[in-house]
Amino acid sequence: MSASKESGVRTAADALRDYCAGILGGVGVPDDQAALVAHSLVEADLRGVASHGSNLVALYVSRIRAGSMQPRTEIRVIDDQGATLQLDGGLGPGQVAGVHAIDRAVERAREYGVAAVSVRESTHLGALGYYTLRAAKEGVFAMAFQNGPTIVPPFGGITPVFSTNPVSYAVPAGAEAPIVYDVATTAIAGNKLILARKQGDPIPEGWASDERGVPTTDPHRASIEGLQWFGGHKGFGIAMLVEILAGLLTNSSFGRTEIGDSAFTGRERVAKGYLFLALDVSRFLPLDEFRQRTDTLIRDVRDSEPAQGVERVLVPGEIEHRRWLECSKRGVPLPAALLAELEALGAEFGLGAIPRPAD
Amino acid sequence: MSASKESGVRTAADALRDYCAGILGGVGVPDDQAALVAHSLVEADLRGVASHGSNLVALYVSRIRAGSMQPRTEIRVIDDQGATLQLDGGLGPGQVAGVHAIDRAVERAREYGVAAVSVRESTHLGALGYYTLRAAKEGVFAMAFQNGPTIVPPFGGITPVFSTNPVSYAVPAGAEAPIVYDVATTAIAGNKLILARKQGDPIPEGWASDERGVPTTDPHRASIEGLQWFGGHKGFGIAMLVEILAGLLTNSSFGRTEIGDSAFTGRERVAKGYLFLALDVSRFLPLDEFRQRTDTLIRDVRDSEPAQGVERVLVPGEIEHRRWLECSKRGVPLPAALLAELEALGAEFGLGAIPRPAD
Repeated sequence: MSASKESGVRTAADALRDYCAGILGGVGVPDDQAALVAHSLVEADLRGVASHGSNLVALYVSRIRAGSMQPRTEIRVIDDQGATLQLDGGLGPGQVAGVHAIDRAVERAREYGVAAVSVRESTHLGALGYYTLRAAKEGVFAMAFQNGPTIVPPFGGITPVFSTNPVSYAVPAGAEAPIVYDVATTAIAGNKLILARKQGDPIPEGWASDERGVPTTDPHRASIEGLQWFGGHKGFGIAMLVEILAGLLTNSSFGRTEIGDSAFTGRERVAKGYLFLALDVSRFLPLDEFRQRTDTLIRDVRDSEPAQGVERVLVPGEIEHRRWLECSKRGVPLPAALLAELEALGAEFGLGAIPRPAD
Repeated sequence: MSASKESGVRTAADALRDYCAGILGGVGVPDDQAALVAHSLVEADLRGVASHGSNLVALYVSRIRAGSMQPRTEIRVIDDQGATLQLDGGLGPGQVAGVHAIDRAVERAREYGVAAVSVRESTHLGALGYYTLRAAKEGVFAMAFQNGPTIVPPFGGITPVFSTNPVSYAVPAGAEAPIVYDVATTAIAGNKLILARKQGDPIPEGWASDERGVPTTDPHRASIEGLQWFGGHKGFGIAMLVEILAGLLTNSSFGRTEIGDSAFTGRERVAKGYLFLALDVSRFLPLDEFRQRTDTLIRDVRDSEPAQGVERVLVPGEIEHRRWLECSKRGVPLPAALLAELEALGAEFGLGAIPRPAD
């Protein structure tokens, strides 16, 4: 059994995928859909994004049991005009509609050059970078925009209007790994504030305000509804962009307005709506040449002389890709509590222990 | 003569436009193109964005005289595949190719749903918001991405790789003014640093570093090549997005790589390349309904309770729109030095004084 104090128990990615899929299958998710959801979650684990990894299986199970997530995803076409496509995600695990949607976006971008695919009535999507990277691996540039529960106020305000409004893009590369940008437009995600409270550490300036909107570094005075946008008004403008493309345009709920006939809203849903934009770079220059240029830009960044105190200059997604390489080889580190949670769920469906690789 | 100490002399927008067009005509810009460039510049003045206003006429004249900007713009189609279109801007004033390109983007978005129009071999574009707002007024959502001279290092580095990489989007609204986002992806534009030096004021944290990459609030230690991205690594990721869409994809120069056969590069050009993305919102929902939803979102933001110390909560472009309304009525305030500069140029071409509205 491979274990370390810092990173927990390491499990092989394929064994973890099968296990997560087994649990999801146990609550009625069809095999192919369960495999797809599990793949998305374990990719996040491999990339070191534990918040969007197998950690979410228990949440999905509880939502399926509570009836706020459908085990079997039925995707419905609302409107198809070629370069634009509107889908209904059937309130299944967001990954099923998400993968379907990004694959359509890639296919339509190849046909028309540019394409926009929207999804409404979906649920938790996992990491947006999973979808944009999937397109980039196919040689297609993609962007993703998603809105969600109304918890974050506009810049300068204290009334919740927005979610943490994540945005992602990914860029095909050649010898280098694709560039993958995948961020919340808030300075931090809410769970980092909760962690700082548990640890009693002061939080950096610019993370959050108290309930009156006064900036604070005290994690106990800081409010979840006081999360700040990255880069002040400029980051807020990006959050507005996300709200418009993911909410208004997709006929989903947006701001403080609920749209649609779903009984499940707000935090129960996580994704209100999302939009994928895809662009076939080969319409502009040969794909191989584009890939080489991406490599050149990556190396321009990486070869920049570092500022004082900086170890290395990074491109978006580089840390996560290194982590993916390392964990694909050495296994996914899972905290003991998560392992216990998964195995307790697995036991309900006759699954044994998650196999540990021999050390 | 209308004048105030704070805002300089006020001139009527139409008179200022005619005067700027007259100067540009004097150095050989065809009448229709001169009118178009002047319109873009005076719109920026009206919106209070003086850095992109009639202030630029002298620069354009000097570049045309030096031969690094062509007076007569000949736009060439490099490749036309319907939803994607590549143009050559003929190294004329960027506004001529820019307006042509955004109009094509609107037209193609209406035809295909989504469209991408790229321009290379162009020059200074003025404010990007001018183009996206033009599309939004037509009921089409648009985004703009532009790269430029290699002056700003990547996040964590000190070797220049990027420009200030502006990005803009604009959103059709109904009773409200369109949302217009138009920002440099650096925390500030370089001219604000130069102004702080002149005034001897300390600069806010996060604006700039010294030449070793050490953050500083001393405007004299701060380096123009040490401009920081808005919101740290998250803002840097937006700058990368701009570099990829405006540079790599458009077959223009990017990062530290020069591409193309132009003799004019770097700061002489300002725009290396740019891309407009346009999306016909009526493919997703009736335009009137979209407009109403934009209004609702704008009001959700505006009606948010302000944080302590904040007077009012704003949407992107709101301040500029208010300024536009005020200046359209009361005239464009021009500093005395700018007025003198314009009239000295005008005198070379037999133009008299810029008419001042009667007070």
